[in-house]
Amino acid sequence: MKQEKLTTRSENYSEWYNQVIQRAELADYAPVRGCMVIRPYGWALWENIQAQLDSRFKATGHVNAAFPLLIPMSFLEKEKQHVKGFAPELAVVTHGGGQELEEPLVVRPTSETIIGHMYSKWIKSYRDLPVLINQWGNVVRWEMRTRLFLRTLEFYWQEGHTAHATYEEAEEETLRMVNTYAEFAYNEAAVPVIVGRKSESEKFAGALRSYSIEAMMGDRKALQSGTSHNLAQNFSNAFDIKFLDEKNELQYAWTTSWGVSTRLIGAIIMTHGDDQGLIFPPRLAPIQVVIVPIYRNDEEKAKVQPVVNQLKVELAAYRVKVDERMEQTPGFKFNDWEMRGVPLRLEIGPKDVDEQHMMAARRDVPGRDGKVILPLENCCAAVGKLLEEIQAALLARATAFRDANIHSPETYEELKQVVDSAWAFSYWCGNPACEDKIKEDTKATVRCIPFDQPKEHGACIVCGADATEKAYIAKAY
Amino acid sequence: MKQEKLTTRSENYSEWYNQVIQRAELADYAPVRGCMVIRPYGWALWENIQAQLDSRFKATGHVNAAFPLLIPMSFLEKEKQHVKGFAPELAVVTHGGGQELEEPLVVRPTSETIIGHMYSKWIKSYRDLPVLINQWGNVVRWEMRTRLFLRTLEFYWQEGHTAHATYEEAEEETLRMVNTYAEFAYNEAAVPVIVGRKSESEKFAGALRSYSIEAMMGDRKALQSGTSHNLAQNFSNAFDIKFLDEKNELQYAWTTSWGVSTRLIGAIIMTHGDDQGLIFPPRLAPIQVVIVPIYRNDEEKAKVQPVVNQLKVELAAYRVKVDERMEQTPGFKFNDWEMRGVPLRLEIGPKDVDEQHMMAARRDVPGRDGKVILPLENCCAAVGKLLEEIQAALLARATAFRDANIHSPETYEELKQVVDSAWAFSYWCGNPACEDKIKEDTKATVRCIPFDQPKEHGACIVCGADATEKAYIAKAY
Repeated sequence: MKQEKLTTRSENYSEWYNQVIQRAELADYAPVRGCMVIRPYGWALWENIQAQLDSRFKATGHVNAAFPLLIPMSFLEKEKQHVKGFAPELAVVTHGGGQELEEPLVVRPTSETIIGHMYSKWIKSYRDLPVLINQWGNVVRWEMRTRLFLRTLEFYWQEGHTAHATYEEAEEETLRMVNTYAEFAYNEAAVPVIVGRKSESEKFAGALRSYSIEAMMGDRKALQSGTSHNLAQNFSNAFDIKFLDEKNELQYAWTTSWGVSTRLIGAIIMTHGDDQGLIFPPRLAPIQVVIVPIYRNDEEKAKVQPVVNQLKVELAAYRVKVDERMEQTPGFKFNDWEMRGVPLRLEIGPKDVDEQHMMAARRDVPGRDGKVILPLENCCAAVGKLLEEIQAALLARATAFRDANIHSPETYEELKQVVDSAWAFSYWCGNPACEDKIKEDTKATVRCIPFDQPKEHGACIVCGADATEKAYIAKAY
Repeated sequence: MKQEKLTTRSENYSEWYNQVIQRAELADYAPVRGCMVIRPYGWALWENIQAQLDSRFKATGHVNAAFPLLIPMSFLEKEKQHVKGFAPELAVVTHGGGQELEEPLVVRPTSETIIGHMYSKWIKSYRDLPVLINQWGNVVRWEMRTRLFLRTLEFYWQEGHTAHATYEEAEEETLRMVNTYAEFAYNEAAVPVIVGRKSESEKFAGALRSYSIEAMMGDRKALQSGTSHNLAQNFSNAFDIKFLDEKNELQYAWTTSWGVSTRLIGAIIMTHGDDQGLIFPPRLAPIQVVIVPIYRNDEEKAKVQPVVNQLKVELAAYRVKVDERMEQTPGFKFNDWEMRGVPLRLEIGPKDVDEQHMMAARRDVPGRDGKVILPLENCCAAVGKLLEEIQAALLARATAFRDANIHSPETYEELKQVVDSAWAFSYWCGNPACEDKIKEDTKATVRCIPFDQPKEHGACIVCGADATEKAYIAKAY
């Protein structure tokens, strides 16, 4: 079998992205425009992401549930900003069971409305609060320009929906969850995201305030990778979510929502991948270690195979794959697993058996520098240590790349140059007109206003007016 | 808070069923006709079911993936029996992004068609086989008469779809999966299902042969609880799933599909529940042990609470809930958790602390007979043993109930009486006309033709013709 070279990132980044996803069998195009099939290797990555996030949600008191896929059109219309934001993207079911429906149903683009409706039935007293529910599922948004994992008509995500007795508790929850996303991104995905507030024009349709995590991709574009919204009483008003407080007075509940999606897979691909293909962070990698046995004849095989079998048992704590394909050469296999992003490869041939060791090759360090000889005996701890080193190295490298590509331009002219190929970190007065001007002139947008802010005031990079906050400005997916 | 008595099963079984689901907060009606919300307590049960099944699927070499929710209408039409079966139940998306679609899309009622399309792209050689993919997800079927968990417009399930090089391998897979379902039902759900083949009229639309597991509910109706289909080359022909065999000749692949759904929750409710409410089998119960601390004042609380806290730590291996509600009496709590089906309750008051023991109350044995005093010290093993005993007792009770309600009528008149309130096990010649006659006369149907068969021939219970097989005949959900 022939291995075609991938298009390099510098040749054509977006072509590299599409190629690597399809060749590594993470996903494929579906026969419906803008939809994708998430293949087993991609879904295994998503399962690992889900497991890590789900345990964090449960540790902070959340429980899972399932709300309907189909939502009456009239529900969407109850919150004015919400319907304005989502109406252009709806998929509409007009017929069911061979009959035209009296009221069309939309395939959920997000579930604030139907969950709000149910919460109004379930929440009666302050004793019922907080309600802390999450849902893992699929949603449909009729996007015109789609990209595998980044923007597809249907995508998989989780959406948390909580209701609280006070504004303060809702705000605390909103922040807790965006910070949970950031912690996950750093520690599991090795993606050094920046946490901050979205600008008014970029916030969720119907929210008082939105927070996000923003990641820098290998082409220095930004990718919004998770959001958390303080919905204030907007949806409680629209759906009549009321409770009797401790003084027996009726109050509207304060709600939040927050979500991350299969877009995170895109973030991992574009944060770590190189011209050889994917590089998966060990903690999330579907396959953490691939073992390639090397032999040229049955005699060598008889020597190598039992050692490989024993090694697999020894490494049972990790997600290990033994590549036993007969029709491929070791060289083909090395390239193949590098392309597929497996963090660590172990090679064992007859000489290695004689010397009771093996060759370990790190995916993140190409060539000889990434190779190290490991003794076979008690190798479990050594392999674990290597995986941790790879995890840390990926985060360090991504952080260095991010920091090297964030600049603080002095003038608007400089800003225009900076955002052509990097991120700007600049004072912004908060005026939407200045935000619009940047977008018009450069296609870059205000990604977020980070929590970490200088103490001093400054001059807005666009209009020069007094500004109290700095914002990250970049082109984004 | 007042606790209203549940309607008893003998008063009105179906009302009992609906009440217990809503009071235990397993599910609620959604604002869209025929749809439901699976609430956190119900979803936690489903998560436990999923975890047990998923590990069995993975242990037999299957991997998970995700295929699109929306399927072009024309795909359904490619397999004639398939479209005939599903056309009346389709939900159809006609508009997307504000535009009428050129081709309507159906919300998947099942995914053989779109998966068949993808398999035809992916499968080229015998080396690509077998393909063993499962999908956890939601489907929509426009049912007219719906029941919570048993039959809803949208439901959650898993659908396995496999492709093989030979008929024999496909048949082996089909049988492997129906037997996996049966093993799960017995060992995890304590539901003593009967495994067998569906009759021609009851098989899946597009299948060569369908197998199912059939369970007997508390009202002695049958519930089909899982199915596995040998699709032969029907979908391979329709979707052009071809591979080059070892002789380099083009062959159509042999495919299978198999699924269980949230209907299993209905099976668990109606197999084990009693007039006090739910009884969950310990291995799947969202809460296995509830601890109710008993005190009347702060002094007693100061004595009991630390022991309860310590107990929770001791029992960390189990899913434990401590009921710390201040506004409810212990008596209320006992009833409440009994209604919610928690298999084991532990009660601890100040006297118990003095005597270093606690009262354990089994959910499956009402009153004093189900109570036993357990020492506090090293109670983890004793609690585990009790849970195992409850699990075994539930299976034994359900099996005895099932066997007491299966009869072998001698004549067709007797059969008509039997199926009014039980199952019949009778010789059947296999003629659909006899099957139709039973249905017309009694509303009962052939549930399955079990694998265990007598060696002798017999006379068809309807027409008297020579029959080689016996079938279970019963009214079904």
